[in-house]
Amino acid sequence: MSAIKQIRDYLAENCIDALVLYNSDPHESEYLAPRYCSIEWLSGFKGENAKMVITPSRSVLWTDPRYEIQVAQDLAGSDIEVLMERVPNAISIPDFLKSVEAKTIAIDSLTTSVAAALELQDVTENALICLPDFLDRFWKERPAMPCKDIFEADVRYMGESREERLSWLRGIMEKEGTDYILISELSEIAWLLNIRSSEIDYNPLAMAHLLVSLDDAYLYIRKIGKAHGEITTASTFAALEQAGVSIYDYDEVTSVLSTLLSSPGAKTMKFRIDPSTTNYEIYRLFLESLPENCIVQADSPITVRKACKNSVEIEAMKKAHFEDGIAMEKFLYWIDNNAGEGVTEYDAMQVLDEYRAEIEGYHSLSFGTISAYGPSAALPHYMTPAEGSLELQRCGLYLVDSGGQYDFGTTDITRTVPLGECSQEEMLDYTLVLKAHIRCAMAVLPAGSFGIQLDAISRDCLWRARKNFFHGLGHGVGMFLGVHECPPNVRSRFIDSPMLPGMIFSDEPGIYVQGSHGIRHENLLLCTQDETNDYGSFISFETLTLCHFDTRAIVPGILSSEETEWLNQYNATVYNSLKDSLPQEVADWLYDMTQPIEC
Amino acid sequence: MSAIKQIRDYLAENCIDALVLYNSDPHESEYLAPRYCSIEWLSGFKGENAKMVITPSRSVLWTDPRYEIQVAQDLAGSDIEVLMERVPNAISIPDFLKSVEAKTIAIDSLTTSVAAALELQDVTENALICLPDFLDRFWKERPAMPCKDIFEADVRYMGESREERLSWLRGIMEKEGTDYILISELSEIAWLLNIRSSEIDYNPLAMAHLLVSLDDAYLYIRKIGKAHGEITTASTFAALEQAGVSIYDYDEVTSVLSTLLSSPGAKTMKFRIDPSTTNYEIYRLFLESLPENCIVQADSPITVRKACKNSVEIEAMKKAHFEDGIAMEKFLYWIDNNAGEGVTEYDAMQVLDEYRAEIEGYHSLSFGTISAYGPSAALPHYMTPAEGSLELQRCGLYLVDSGGQYDFGTTDITRTVPLGECSQEEMLDYTLVLKAHIRCAMAVLPAGSFGIQLDAISRDCLWRARKNFFHGLGHGVGMFLGVHECPPNVRSRFIDSPMLPGMIFSDEPGIYVQGSHGIRHENLLLCTQDETNDYGSFISFETLTLCHFDTRAIVPGILSSEETEWLNQYNATVYNSLKDSLPQEVADWLYDMTQPIEC
Repeated sequence: MSAIKQIRDYLAENCIDALVLYNSDPHESEYLAPRYCSIEWLSGFKGENAKMVITPSRSVLWTDPRYEIQVAQDLAGSDIEVLMERVPNAISIPDFLKSVEAKTIAIDSLTTSVAAALELQDVTENALICLPDFLDRFWKERPAMPCKDIFEADVRYMGESREERLSWLRGIMEKEGTDYILISELSEIAWLLNIRSSEIDYNPLAMAHLLVSLDDAYLYIRKIGKAHGEITTASTFAALEQAGVSIYDYDEVTSVLSTLLSSPGAKTMKFRIDPSTTNYEIYRLFLESLPENCIVQADSPITVRKACKNSVEIEAMKKAHFEDGIAMEKFLYWIDNNAGEGVTEYDAMQVLDEYRAEIEGYHSLSFGTISAYGPSAALPHYMTPAEGSLELQRCGLYLVDSGGQYDFGTTDITRTVPLGECSQEEMLDYTLVLKAHIRCAMAVLPAGSFGIQLDAISRDCLWRARKNFFHGLGHGVGMFLGVHECPPNVRSRFIDSPMLPGMIFSDEPGIYVQGSHGIRHENLLLCTQDETNDYGSFISFETLTLCHFDTRAIVPGILSSEETEWLNQYNATVYNSLKDSLPQEVADWLYDMTQPIEC
Repeated sequence: MSAIKQIRDYLAENCIDALVLYNSDPHESEYLAPRYCSIEWLSGFKGENAKMVITPSRSVLWTDPRYEIQVAQDLAGSDIEVLMERVPNAISIPDFLKSVEAKTIAIDSLTTSVAAALELQDVTENALICLPDFLDRFWKERPAMPCKDIFEADVRYMGESREERLSWLRGIMEKEGTDYILISELSEIAWLLNIRSSEIDYNPLAMAHLLVSLDDAYLYIRKIGKAHGEITTASTFAALEQAGVSIYDYDEVTSVLSTLLSSPGAKTMKFRIDPSTTNYEIYRLFLESLPENCIVQADSPITVRKACKNSVEIEAMKKAHFEDGIAMEKFLYWIDNNAGEGVTEYDAMQVLDEYRAEIEGYHSLSFGTISAYGPSAALPHYMTPAEGSLELQRCGLYLVDSGGQYDFGTTDITRTVPLGECSQEEMLDYTLVLKAHIRCAMAVLPAGSFGIQLDAISRDCLWRARKNFFHGLGHGVGMFLGVHECPPNVRSRFIDSPMLPGMIFSDEPGIYVQGSHGIRHENLLLCTQDETNDYGSFISFETLTLCHFDTRAIVPGILSSEETEWLNQYNATVYNSLKDSLPQEVADWLYDMTQPIEC
């Protein structure tokens, strides 16, 4: 009997009208450990955006148009219905639940966000039925919680010790009168405690919750497990304890919290939680245990502080981009010499990944490399398949979006390169996207400006050509943390935190033409303090990425003279920075590649 | 005894800790009838942004740095303390009230907005003491309510009859299940009923409230008064009654509403009000009379509909800009020939106002003309004084910001012109502002974009030069209604309604250098539907204003070739559109003025 059938029977037996499941883990993480890939397990659908509602008689899966083709393939032959989000007149999960008159709604409260749970709660007068780890009873081979080595981040690259960061946090708590703060967001815990792991793909993070009081700190982490006999983890735990951080097992978080929150003293205290990164199971524990005035619901104070890199972190990130640039230039040289020789997108990906892995201090990729030729590149989130990927020809455009996690930083870079002759449309789009990239890189904004303003300045030239792309211009990037970090959000429909000096983010405009080609040019930029004068204070941007832009696909007359000058200057900087660290033949080739062009 | 002293005594006698007064009328109007210029009457301060708190022992006035010099002059010799808004660490009115431990707070509830009242209510546990028209008892010579002729807007220019507009509104009410909607915003009433007046300076509006039900409409307006014996008003009222609009006197609104809301049937009905334009006296009447579920608090549905001009209105606005352009060109010719001949800013203003007044269908100015030479122009809201205004010399820059109200539309235009030799800085700033203007005029945006995005695209070139200006890039403009209309808001810190086809707004970047010069280049633009393709739907902008930009102060090398082409094309269009309607000598001069330049 299929899992879905078993679940349906369970729902019917227990008078539950609907079970709602999200592709999510207990920490609102972007990448999921296999244990939490529940929608894939249930349905076979591998797309990142996936939610399901199972009722005693129906199974419905939600995704968005990016996955239209994939979902049809993955669900072929199943009786799962598909509904699309982000389309006109989309039927949302609450809409659907109302339409089937669901009164009794169950969730896995560990993997449901507070926002999602509150939205579901609006549908029905009955309290949601919270079933933490509900799937355990049906998923016999469910992967265990990840349990990897925990190690210390090198403070030489972090610029601040965990004691300093804890003391900063406690300063805020003291000022606000907060007794405890709960942190469930994994990169915030890693940042605060200067610890790293590899429990989640591409993210150097450990699964954990952290409770900090003015005097103590309690870390809930996989304490016992196969990897944890290792010396690194033991010494990390010792170092943490020395800094006043007590270590508990991950699974104890609910029971310890439960005891603490129901203690008589708790009602005289203030607990701060961030509902955007706390799972609903823990959230309701707070709300059910304490009067409202004991709970401060607010964005974590760590988010913005972590996003603004200190000078040591910035230097380390520059080192990461130097090393990463060497790997990238070696790769682009290889591509230039091997395209048309029978190599595929997948082969190319392996070559690049290998160059990165050779770097001392390399930890992992920062996301799965996108190696995409011709029409493959028209899919912004193309997953290069091991079998059947396209062979690179000596014509058209090849796009590679990739990055690494190093002890000293995180990188994210996209280059699109001509492999030979390109069509006029390809070259025009190539140049327009480069112009949009440069407009962002050269921008100056008043202090306190928002990502939406930078996004508009960059896209202006694409819009005038009646073109556009449907992802953000940029996202924040962590310091040996997640490659996607908020803030900043450099997007078209979004105002959150202003862009602040020290923030590092991607500048990655694109144009995608289905069935034909895709172009994206991506560097990481550092937001820096610029001039202060009678007009106020300004910010501007320093490019961190060190890898030349190919000038061979540029159409003359589109870049302005100052944009051309920026490009020539940038390519010269790349050559001068890397030439002595590249194999001679690559350096010679790069010299040719970085000769200045005229506008 | 001064009025303030009398008020203080009154407060002390009645155990009121503080009286809060706003420069406001019962309709949240931008311009105030003299009756509502209460802060000016009390303090002598004429600035537009003014609020006061009077306690038994202190008087404090709030304004913002724009009025720093003026407030010092106007309050010289008084014991009124001044506090500034919009500065770092500003002390707000609630801050102040808390600091003086005000528990019993009084307001004139007729001239206090809902937002302001709710903010004050947060300060104290005691209910606010609402004293409508409180100043009447102290202000012996208080001007009466304005009472001017009410006339019908010409439906040939409006494109829709009042019956059609009422029927559209009732369609929305029906769909939503609303029984009554109250409209207090004067331009919404004028638009809906196609009536106009001149009860408020520069705004062709009548003081009124309007209550619309599915079958009836009740207009509260100055029914009896000196102007109202006139034939126009009588025939307007007759036409309104024919359209099912019953006329009541303005002063009856509270008592009629009070009776209606306390009637037994009211509790089964839905009343829609817009708290952003309802005064607190009426708002509390609703909240005190009815259960919460009978009141729908929402932005008025008229706001966005009114902002999107129909094709007849657009044609009429084009006619207004044609006529206005003739007046402007005649004026600029006059300036070019008379500067340096002893004429002052004030003389120039009178000449321009006279040219406008000659236009058939002229109703009034759309705001007080700003005629500013040299350092005067550095004040964006300079009020040209009748006595002692600067004499125009044959050098430097002269700025004129002005507009008219015509039966067929509303205009708003700023031109800055060189009167002779200009400094390098003046010319550089002149050119940068022109570039910013053109970047907005040439912009293309995806449908659904916001003003903040257009604002950033325009300012980009100023920001790169580390310059900026501290007002919005643009504001919406009404159709023979207020010259300031929202939406759209084309500003740096603001997301409200998206920019929609049919919206008309100003494109008016500037640079202001204190003590030296000020530059602003302003046209009105019409938002139009642009191409729809694989990248979605786009909007772009058509310039309505017809008046050339002076090319004599342009520094070469700053405008791009496409911006230069736009400018040459625009100037040619102005010449070709107006030449046959101008006096021959003006046409000849304009021919020279509009010769194409190189970039």
